[in-house]
Amino acid sequence: MPKYFRHNIVAMAGYVPGEQPGDDGVIKLNTNENPYGPSPKVYATLKRAVNSSLRLYPEPQSDTLRAAAARVYGVKPANIIVGNGSDEILSMLLRCFVGPGDRVAYPVPTYSLYDTLVEIQDGSKAAVNYPADFSLPAALTEQNAVLTFVCNPNAPSGTLISLPAIEKLARSVSGILAVDEAYIDFAATEGASTIPLIHQLPNLVVLRTFSKSFSLAGMRIGMAFADEEMIAGIMKVKDSYNVNRLSLLAATAALEDLPWMTRNAQRIQRSRKKLSAGLARLGYHVYPSQANFVLARRNGENIRSVYEELKRRKIYVRYFDLPGLQDCLRITVGTPSEIKIFLKEMATLTH
Amino acid sequence: MPKYFRHNIVAMAGYVPGEQPGDDGVIKLNTNENPYGPSPKVYATLKRAVNSSLRLYPEPQSDTLRAAAARVYGVKPANIIVGNGSDEILSMLLRCFVGPGDRVAYPVPTYSLYDTLVEIQDGSKAAVNYPADFSLPAALTEQNAVLTFVCNPNAPSGTLISLPAIEKLARSVSGILAVDEAYIDFAATEGASTIPLIHQLPNLVVLRTFSKSFSLAGMRIGMAFADEEMIAGIMKVKDSYNVNRLSLLAATAALEDLPWMTRNAQRIQRSRKKLSAGLARLGYHVYPSQANFVLARRNGENIRSVYEELKRRKIYVRYFDLPGLQDCLRITVGTPSEIKIFLKEMATLTH
Repeated sequence: MPKYFRHNIVAMAGYVPGEQPGDDGVIKLNTNENPYGPSPKVYATLKRAVNSSLRLYPEPQSDTLRAAAARVYGVKPANIIVGNGSDEILSMLLRCFVGPGDRVAYPVPTYSLYDTLVEIQDGSKAAVNYPADFSLPAALTEQNAVLTFVCNPNAPSGTLISLPAIEKLARSVSGILAVDEAYIDFAATEGASTIPLIHQLPNLVVLRTFSKSFSLAGMRIGMAFADEEMIAGIMKVKDSYNVNRLSLLAATAALEDLPWMTRNAQRIQRSRKKLSAGLARLGYHVYPSQANFVLARRNGENIRSVYEELKRRKIYVRYFDLPGLQDCLRITVGTPSEIKIFLKEMATLTH
Repeated sequence: MPKYFRHNIVAMAGYVPGEQPGDDGVIKLNTNENPYGPSPKVYATLKRAVNSSLRLYPEPQSDTLRAAAARVYGVKPANIIVGNGSDEILSMLLRCFVGPGDRVAYPVPTYSLYDTLVEIQDGSKAAVNYPADFSLPAALTEQNAVLTFVCNPNAPSGTLISLPAIEKLARSVSGILAVDEAYIDFAATEGASTIPLIHQLPNLVVLRTFSKSFSLAGMRIGMAFADEEMIAGIMKVKDSYNVNRLSLLAATAALEDLPWMTRNAQRIQRSRKKLSAGLARLGYHVYPSQANFVLARRNGENIRSVYEELKRRKIYVRYFDLPGLQDCLRITVGTPSEIKIFLKEMATLTH
């Protein structure tokens, strides 16, 4: 690497995103995309917007989308910041709160991008192991962290931490608690979101994305909810025009057709049950998932070969071999027919 | 501000983008957008792409766009990184090269976002005054900077530094030289771009944007060109999916209709002459611009009131009152009819 780079950038490996095969014939169950497309209202809005207004900068603070989201989530627009995917907001949080050597805590295994972001910011990782049941580890509050992440439901386990447990954590940590709710719309538990808590907890930041339940991974839109003053501070590190015109319009239209999203989330919940049951019948241990994916393993068995054989058969899933999650497959909940094909192929690969 | 923020974030003011009036009746000459829309090929491509593929993540490294740009600019795809606007790439450069207290140098007055980015990264600003003719200040090479920015053509002066002067600067500075060529397609000088120099200068990074000459400010797409190893390093700090599907397609289609862009750039060059001449006739000093805007002043005269009266008349320009550029108006080169109206109103405001 050229000599000019900071020591922490030289030392880091970089995040490896899931494979994005170009081949249309693939059954793609590897990056937790929604198998159903976005609302027809999104298409209509986008088609209307393809005109010479693209020559003009977008709204710098995404005010129209924030107003729509404020109505849907029962907060004020000033409680919301919009990002180029929730990944950009995660990155903003690091830049706001984490100086060199500052500690960033999170229970692991979890979304591995947190590691990467801490490395980029030259912070110090305080990873605390989840217990086997994926409840919150008590040691999480003892990390003296300026920033604590909880992905809820967690990736790649799919498990959900209860609202009271999150609230207690927010009151116990010394710094910011960021709850990454990328998958929360798929939770079967009602009222699991921590967004209503932002009014009582000044150190709470709740992240959402349009990539999963709203079927807009290709458009890169995320949001964070927090106390007004917190949002105003985070705005300082935002790029001036961080979200493009079409993505802003797509997200606003998606929020205006909430039943479309909830219907798809319910279909995915039903399919998740079938997928979990099918894998259990094949002898896999399946973690109780509240997300749009399930994590499966067979104790003591190396299933990397299963992952590779599936790939040869044009079925992409994700293979994990992490401390605490040795030798797992993570399978995105696809359509009923994709699940049927997947389970059929799995049956031929399982003895 | 809540106590959780880093000291440098608390101390900074935040970048203030130009006004983006929602009113359609406005003549908008304040944020250097192209008065002409993007290529019809962009529209056709976008309309075709509004379909269920939006549910899928985009290419993580923008490979299709990089291949197209490599053909146009005569480099390899590995020499290119794509960003969510060139603003995101500027921010990546800071994160790659600048630690707390590290010096970042640039001649001023220039694009004020550089100040903001250095503040976010807790770096140290080494601003060096341009001489009155806006040639490169000799002291720029003596700053011991890890990163030096030159905006070329410069904003808000519109002035251009010659290729040999840039090359000499790259060889003289100790760290990275980032040349921000956002406006270079509007330069009347042929061969002004430093992109061909990336093969000889391992510390050179050249930034481009689709916001200006390609009429896609609303889509947020920028690129940087550099040595392959440099690009590979910068990739490490990039968000996994930093550019959305539609923006990638729009930029690729725009590159495939280069004559559309060059024709518009030539129209803007012609209009720039008329605008500059008209302002000169009204007694303004107009800086020699190679960009899609002109900067005008009247020595010793406060023209903030002119800016404000123009705004009341629904003509938005930008007012600057910076050290070295006291009391200036920056006017984006609009359509011939917008320029005619602007000059007519200016005549009534000038005695």
